[in-house]
Amino acid sequence: MKIELTSGKTLSATKNESIYHALRRQGIYLVASCGGKGVCGKCRVKLLEGRGRIISTGKLTPIDIDARFVLACQTFPEENIFIEIPEESRLVVGERIAISKSRDLFELLHSLKAEISPIVKRIQLNLPPPTIHDNISDLERLKRALDEKGMKGMRFSHGFVSSMATALRKADWKANLAYTDGPEAIFISPLKSKDRYGIAVDIGTTTIVVYLVNLTDGRLIDVGSTYNSQMRYGDDIITRIVYATEGGGLEELRDTVVSDINAILTPMIERHNIRIEDIESAVISGNTTMSHIFWGLSPQYIREEPYIPTMNLFPSWKAGTARLNINLQAPVYTVPCVASYVGGDIVAGVLASKMHRSDEVSLFMDIGTNGEIAIGNSEWIVTAACSAGPCFEGSGIRHGMRATEGAIESVKIDPRTFEPVINVIGNGKPMGICGSGMIDAISEMFLIGVIDQKGRFVREVKTGRIRDGVDGPEFLIFSRDGRDIVLTEVDIENILRAKAAIYAGVSLLLKEVGVTLDKIGRAYIAGGFGNYLNVDKAIILGMLPDLPEGKFKFLGNTSIAGAYLCLLSDTMRRKAEEIAGKMTYMELSVSRRFMDEYMSALFLPHTDIGLFPTVEKLLYKLYKK
Amino acid sequence: MKIELTSGKTLSATKNESIYHALRRQGIYLVASCGGKGVCGKCRVKLLEGRGRIISTGKLTPIDIDARFVLACQTFPEENIFIEIPEESRLVVGERIAISKSRDLFELLHSLKAEISPIVKRIQLNLPPPTIHDNISDLERLKRALDEKGMKGMRFSHGFVSSMATALRKADWKANLAYTDGPEAIFISPLKSKDRYGIAVDIGTTTIVVYLVNLTDGRLIDVGSTYNSQMRYGDDIITRIVYATEGGGLEELRDTVVSDINAILTPMIERHNIRIEDIESAVISGNTTMSHIFWGLSPQYIREEPYIPTMNLFPSWKAGTARLNINLQAPVYTVPCVASYVGGDIVAGVLASKMHRSDEVSLFMDIGTNGEIAIGNSEWIVTAACSAGPCFEGSGIRHGMRATEGAIESVKIDPRTFEPVINVIGNGKPMGICGSGMIDAISEMFLIGVIDQKGRFVREVKTGRIRDGVDGPEFLIFSRDGRDIVLTEVDIENILRAKAAIYAGVSLLLKEVGVTLDKIGRAYIAGGFGNYLNVDKAIILGMLPDLPEGKFKFLGNTSIAGAYLCLLSDTMRRKAEEIAGKMTYMELSVSRRFMDEYMSALFLPHTDIGLFPTVEKLLYKLYKK
Repeated sequence: MKIELTSGKTLSATKNESIYHALRRQGIYLVASCGGKGVCGKCRVKLLEGRGRIISTGKLTPIDIDARFVLACQTFPEENIFIEIPEESRLVVGERIAISKSRDLFELLHSLKAEISPIVKRIQLNLPPPTIHDNISDLERLKRALDEKGMKGMRFSHGFVSSMATALRKADWKANLAYTDGPEAIFISPLKSKDRYGIAVDIGTTTIVVYLVNLTDGRLIDVGSTYNSQMRYGDDIITRIVYATEGGGLEELRDTVVSDINAILTPMIERHNIRIEDIESAVISGNTTMSHIFWGLSPQYIREEPYIPTMNLFPSWKAGTARLNINLQAPVYTVPCVASYVGGDIVAGVLASKMHRSDEVSLFMDIGTNGEIAIGNSEWIVTAACSAGPCFEGSGIRHGMRATEGAIESVKIDPRTFEPVINVIGNGKPMGICGSGMIDAISEMFLIGVIDQKGRFVREVKTGRIRDGVDGPEFLIFSRDGRDIVLTEVDIENILRAKAAIYAGVSLLLKEVGVTLDKIGRAYIAGGFGNYLNVDKAIILGMLPDLPEGKFKFLGNTSIAGAYLCLLSDTMRRKAEEIAGKMTYMELSVSRRFMDEYMSALFLPHTDIGLFPTVEKLLYKLYKK
Repeated sequence: MKIELTSGKTLSATKNESIYHALRRQGIYLVASCGGKGVCGKCRVKLLEGRGRIISTGKLTPIDIDARFVLACQTFPEENIFIEIPEESRLVVGERIAISKSRDLFELLHSLKAEISPIVKRIQLNLPPPTIHDNISDLERLKRALDEKGMKGMRFSHGFVSSMATALRKADWKANLAYTDGPEAIFISPLKSKDRYGIAVDIGTTTIVVYLVNLTDGRLIDVGSTYNSQMRYGDDIITRIVYATEGGGLEELRDTVVSDINAILTPMIERHNIRIEDIESAVISGNTTMSHIFWGLSPQYIREEPYIPTMNLFPSWKAGTARLNINLQAPVYTVPCVASYVGGDIVAGVLASKMHRSDEVSLFMDIGTNGEIAIGNSEWIVTAACSAGPCFEGSGIRHGMRATEGAIESVKIDPRTFEPVINVIGNGKPMGICGSGMIDAISEMFLIGVIDQKGRFVREVKTGRIRDGVDGPEFLIFSRDGRDIVLTEVDIENILRAKAAIYAGVSLLLKEVGVTLDKIGRAYIAGGFGNYLNVDKAIILGMLPDLPEGKFKFLGNTSIAGAYLCLLSDTMRRKAEEIAGKMTYMELSVSRRFMDEYMSALFLPHTDIGLFPTVEKLLYKLYKK
């Protein structure tokens, strides 16, 4: 069957293939934060001609359906079709973040005074070819040469030996031996080969990000990301652990995350014409459960008191063991974890924040699916986790999306007309709203009285922008050409729960270590916020503590940044291990005091307004004059 | 469908299952030296009632077919059938060799002054269970305990860690850590567990033998063997290499040999009620090509000048990598090889012969598929290979079989009546003829003038025992109840070629090292001859050099004996490596002088009768008086 596009292009579709998958196979990528599972409702296309079997209409509104919209991932052509792909549904591969970050990362590496020293080292060999008189085996020949160079005790894995004989002959006995510390031989490569690549991978509970890096110069070659397909088994860590253990689904979850990574890699490799074998190392950064599942280790004991992970410091295992689609011999470094609920992503974050180099006390907050906090300096670091949920990454929010091209990243609402003024990443047509936009919108709605302290819509406010939608009451943020972007009351509830968990965590941790807010020199914010977050608004929301704006610094995805550092430098890997060893973990989840803090923080900005003097002053100014 | 036996037993058969496989599934084993491939013609059963689909009638004679014989492996029941299994077709599991060897092996181990020290060591751990205050990860807890015992630098594979968390909890934190030198952790086992088993495997080109050994006391628990199923790709090493490389069949050949070993193991494990996980180590002994193929390493360069193996000294890789169906973490030790055509089987053989401990010069001959020779003493050993072919193991010989229960192991022929007097292993009904029986028979036929110096039948001799069979002229050695055992002219040709290759090898090697026959203190014969070989007859045949009978010693399968020693002792493994390092290899295959020696040796006993003074004297006595 054929799929004709309004652009004039004609593609093919095979039997039992969704429009989404047919397009993807032919290089046209649609937005699908749920990974094509019919959940996010974001891969909308207009089916203008032809019939298709429609499995589900997901989050489509009756208006959408009238306008012939279908979900591409839920629609299977039954004859030749003719479709239109609206701009907001089209995924521009290689996010904005890629370009802006490339230089930043390089500067970060530089600022940490780290020389480029990849995981895989090389030693040059010039072997005499075998003759009938010098007829020792290939491996003995290799060992003899290494002995002459004073390298003893090299280990030779089955994977290495399997390709060695042919590789040595192909290279005409003049080759580089790639090896890792151990030392262990990894592979033989021709002397002239200069192609050395690695991947840094951030395995988030919600999103997975892959950086393809040139290991010779540290250059970021490409970036890819996807929602973690494990979301189909549950949004949060606990549901996944239950599925892995009680549901017997460990291998399934493992396959899912590895397939996600491999699916990101495949088009990258094609785009840049890179040979799989030339991707010679990988770094994985994720929370403790994600790291365990990635390696197929049962996360069972992470969930059972006293919450013990199988390991925090992972040995360097092989890509073949991990089932990553790169050189099977490539060492895979896992950024070390701290405890069951503070993982390698936070260690990577601390490393990238450089807080471990400062004498001043810093606050580090990673606002992702789980919400982890670290407080400390060059001498000590304490850390804790609070369950924030993935809504700031767009998940569970009607029109939520990550902070990428097309996301509404800031919102200002006119207090009289209730007209929003929005700012869109990339300045194009808005396609959804990201974390910073949500925070802006809710703070603004609170300030102008559209919602109350509990986040409920004040129905007395006279504006057509408050209306009843498919999910209940909602506020219309943007509307054009039949495409509405709204924030629903359910969205707001989700966001308040997330911000309360974060604030409660910070608040309790500070109390535990006896540090008052004024002692905090820096507050680093990591997570899906991209490069923009209005601190004032986040304080009004009661998510961030009421610190002077100048003390906040936004770092974006520090898990991937830390993974990038570890991919490129021995020093950084050693430093990550040092940091992990130094961090003291506090278990909040069983704490009664944490629950109290959380309940108090469910309001806008907090039940105790005295904790937010800036907001108190602002509200006074707005309503008392 | 049902299979009824004349014994009264009733078995089942599923669709598309051969009689051979149906019987095997239900614990009745038939002789099938080809492994059920329709080649050897040895799994004959009488199909008395019922229909079956017959794929091939293989080596069955018209008389057999008239008597309703079918090949069990080539016959697929199509309805209920009623069969008779003749005694010679029934395999008594656990060969005679097993019982006689158990004590011998133990004495051998003892005589070499080797303490039992298996590959896998154990260290006892008594870990404090984790609490909310002592909440380091499982692996860190393990490392802490090892540190306290002064064990540093332990490596932890993915396979180990995958089962560690649960194993530690099952053992209630008091457990043994099994590890290998490296050191590398292998698995956790409960303190009370005393079940420790290992397997020694001889991978011959023609046959595969597996010893199941108790590692605590060195006891031989069971023995199993089978023809190497790789025979379906060719009888000799070269055909296999060609198939592996040019035919792209490496993985297929690898799977074949590993499946053979696993197929031997499965019933053993069931019989002795042993858990797969308790088989904690393995030793593989085979020629260089077999060792390479077992590990999935291409044997390509073994065959191409200058004949270089990928490796002679194999690292200790895992059973999981080898795909052996034992504990996946079990280390697999490969007896080191010497060169492309002298492998671990010969090193194991020299080790088991103890010739490396004697000041006197010994001759070691392993007469199997390839025919390898070693000459030396405690100071030096030279070695060479000559292509003898597998006929002494029964392959390619009409009624050939290995030296097991039911084999005719000696033959004496009355010079007047031409009536043979035979000796059968186990004293039961003869089922075939083994290497020693063949040698006896041919020497006898030569002495009494039934065959000439070239091995051709002298048709002038008046006896009904020389007759024309399906393969041409043949000599009837045994006949009862319609079951004939013969030696054909083709069989004799094959045997002459084999003996010529062996004699030529010995002869040339002796000349190369400048040692004359009278300097040889001992001549060790290894191979499929079991415990019986008539030296006089082997000298008349011209296979063995004309040495006094007292100098010969028969060792049976020394490859498996050496593998057994290596399985049980560190000292033996080190010794095997020493021997392999000391052996000097001579490449005969390209030698013009070897070809000349071979051609001269194709006669009975040799073109130069002066080399066989004993035979010359005997013939003189027989014919000149």
